[in-house]
Amino acid sequence: MHRPMLQLALDTFDLPSALGPMQRAATHIDVVEAGTILCYAEGMHAVRALRALYPDKVLLADVRIAEAGSIIAKLAFDAGADWVTVVSGATPATMEVVLGEARKRERDVQLELIDGWTWAQAADWRALGIEQVIAHRSRDGEALGDLSWKPGDFDEMRRLADLGFKVTVAGGVEVDDLPRFAGVPIHVFTVGRAIRAAADPAVAAKAFQEAIARVYGAGEPVAAG
Amino acid sequence: MHRPMLQLALDTFDLPSALGPMQRAATHIDVVEAGTILCYAEGMHAVRALRALYPDKVLLADVRIAEAGSIIAKLAFDAGADWVTVVSGATPATMEVVLGEARKRERDVQLELIDGWTWAQAADWRALGIEQVIAHRSRDGEALGDLSWKPGDFDEMRRLADLGFKVTVAGGVEVDDLPRFAGVPIHVFTVGRAIRAAADPAVAAKAFQEAIARVYGAGEPVAAG
Repeated sequence: MHRPMLQLALDTFDLPSALGPMQRAATHIDVVEAGTILCYAEGMHAVRALRALYPDKVLLADVRIAEAGSIIAKLAFDAGADWVTVVSGATPATMEVVLGEARKRERDVQLELIDGWTWAQAADWRALGIEQVIAHRSRDGEALGDLSWKPGDFDEMRRLADLGFKVTVAGGVEVDDLPRFAGVPIHVFTVGRAIRAAADPAVAAKAFQEAIARVYGAGEPVAAG
Repeated sequence: MHRPMLQLALDTFDLPSALGPMQRAATHIDVVEAGTILCYAEGMHAVRALRALYPDKVLLADVRIAEAGSIIAKLAFDAGADWVTVVSGATPATMEVVLGEARKRERDVQLELIDGWTWAQAADWRALGIEQVIAHRSRDGEALGDLSWKPGDFDEMRRLADLGFKVTVAGGVEVDDLPRFAGVPIHVFTVGRAIRAAADPAVAAKAFQEAIARVYGAGEPVAAG
């Protein structure tokens, strides 16, 4: 099993607040995420700045495309994003145009699984050519204040991987949660506040990388594509 | 029947390209729309600039919220938006937090109807407190290159109005289409390119207002709320 990558989610209300922690943690980060909030707050200027600062890292623009896919994807790719996100509520037609834009430039698309999706849809998305999905912790538990990962969450990730998807785990993972992912094929672990708001973002990011290596081995991370 | 308002959709790739036509057409515009593309390109700076320039007009931020509703709504309202949009694929929980943010500030929410919604959902949205919807021309026709309005489009708008929704007609309306809306209760007509790209945006916007007045009477436009 490949070693998953570590993604830092920069969900801040302005660019400077994102740049500080990112710059300190940079050595330990594989994927830089311009979060939805940052994209809305600063526009594609934020993506351009992160591209300029980190030319060799994977850059994700979490634009959560629901419609007007072709134009938003173009905006994000032109700004330097390697990956853009679409939401599971988008129509297959929208997903297709986003995939088309991505393929033209050898970039990729992540599909964010939002409550209400079905396994039949997941199979259709795979057939459409979607290769990456973003899985969340059960929202029902979250709504009740229970932030622990459930066996059902891991079953879902395994089943998504079995369908052929590369699975990103969305925010909320703590270092101590990592051992529970043993045997679950994960492409990217996304961490936000736990690194961004840490007293030392570099130390926090390094701790995540070490925890990932303990669970998955210290080999090369999975390919960026 | 109230006279519908005229909305100019500013869907440009940068702010200056939006400001030129908007400034020229301003006298004839009731609602200023910071389009999805503009919001992603320039961030909430675009909304702030439009608020500063047109303090007395209704300002819509077409942020198409699919998730993370509370934070995106806050960003847009803080920047000066009167209305924000959510997509019909968002969960009722997301819609509720966006409505909650709007009510706190006496602002409002528009729900964008994206292919795949059902009338049962529409009734639920109304019960949830959603008061405004954005209706499109049939996408099937559009995909086949047929841009005419169909009797079914008008039936859908009437039925939405019967449910108690204030209906915005999304882009693509031409001056010559207006007579076909006679008897259809519309809250806002959205026009983009037909005004923005006109040789004289003021003349084009005035022609729309006159066509609206011919169909709906020259009374006061509907309340902004």
